[in-house]
Amino acid sequence: MTDKTQKKTDLMSEAERDAYHAEKMKKKKAARDKILATKTEERGLLIVHTGKGKGKSTAAFGMVFRAIGHGFNVGVVQFVKGKWGTGERDILEKFPDQVTIKAMGEGFTWDVADRQRDLAAARAAWETAKAMIVDERYKMVLLDELNICLRYDYLPIEEVVETLRNKPHDTHVIVTGRNGKDELIEIADLVTEMTEIKHPFRAGVKAQAGIEF
Amino acid sequence: MTDKTQKKTDLMSEAERDAYHAEKMKKKKAARDKILATKTEERGLLIVHTGKGKGKSTAAFGMVFRAIGHGFNVGVVQFVKGKWGTGERDILEKFPDQVTIKAMGEGFTWDVADRQRDLAAARAAWETAKAMIVDERYKMVLLDELNICLRYDYLPIEEVVETLRNKPHDTHVIVTGRNGKDELIEIADLVTEMTEIKHPFRAGVKAQAGIEF
Repeated sequence: MTDKTQKKTDLMSEAERDAYHAEKMKKKKAARDKILATKTEERGLLIVHTGKGKGKSTAAFGMVFRAIGHGFNVGVVQFVKGKWGTGERDILEKFPDQVTIKAMGEGFTWDVADRQRDLAAARAAWETAKAMIVDERYKMVLLDELNICLRYDYLPIEEVVETLRNKPHDTHVIVTGRNGKDELIEIADLVTEMTEIKHPFRAGVKAQAGIEF
Repeated sequence: MTDKTQKKTDLMSEAERDAYHAEKMKKKKAARDKILATKTEERGLLIVHTGKGKGKSTAAFGMVFRAIGHGFNVGVVQFVKGKWGTGERDILEKFPDQVTIKAMGEGFTWDVADRQRDLAAARAAWETAKAMIVDERYKMVLLDELNICLRYDYLPIEEVVETLRNKPHDTHVIVTGRNGKDELIEIADLVTEMTEIKHPFRAGVKAQAGIEF
């Protein structure tokens, strides 16, 4: 609400505010209906969640559940092992008929910092991902933290772009991770950047069950 | 990766790159461990998902599932009815022992645009939310689209801030919706802004099951 609108409604009686609101909403609805009428295509989307804020994997995880709720089959490849907590895994495993989870990225951690092992892990995860993407039994494929592999050049961006460009028409693919590459953003249909405005670590609060894992 | 780093590693042999990477990751890990050691507090957080991009409710929905996976009870109040699709509801209803969903905001839509009805709906939803927040059986309470009620001044921000400030110590409360008010951001522990970089509507693609609902 702009300051101008604020002032305008402040001077109104309740009845005037009601009428003003009804008129405003009617206009909004008309504008929205007009836009929606032009949206007729239905196809699988390439979705990217990037940015430094929280919620990239969590929103993807929410989409996976929504897809399960619709009765779809979903494939999940975790490019970084251990990124998901027991909460996520325990609940996804309650839907074994609909969800296939491949936890790859073995050793892709700061604890080992073995680049050759990371390269091999990224390659293995990507081969699994490719097989899932072309398998039309999956309506949605989540490539969790693929962006980190691309950032460290563990996989050639050209190969990834090529595969995603040629994905089956109806399959939704979600890619998460900070530092999403321009080449990926370029070919994506839906890109959301999660920006951190405030983080509890700053106040000395530790990672907690249900929030971070 | 900065351009400088890129150039640096480009000139290296594979073995040199491996060593460089190992050293860099070791430093990162040390820095991270040092930070984590100072994070000792555990408490319920006030979390806000705002911004114009997608993923605000979906990330909250993902957190609800993660909490369910941990065995917690979760309360959900939908301040705008019909915002959630059948996918979400169908799957949440598979966990009746752990999730309580209150779909409020009856009539809070552009189709009716009846301000008095919206005011009454917002008040009823808020009373339900308050009861859930103080009920310590709930480890997490999601107030979906509360921000829209605050934006239209359907609820006094002072009352909402007062309640959230005094929530039980261990309860996580998540508030979603664009245009999150400054007063709310101010008292929140974790605030993420979802920014729209690219949206499929622009390319004429319509809302689809599993993505929008």
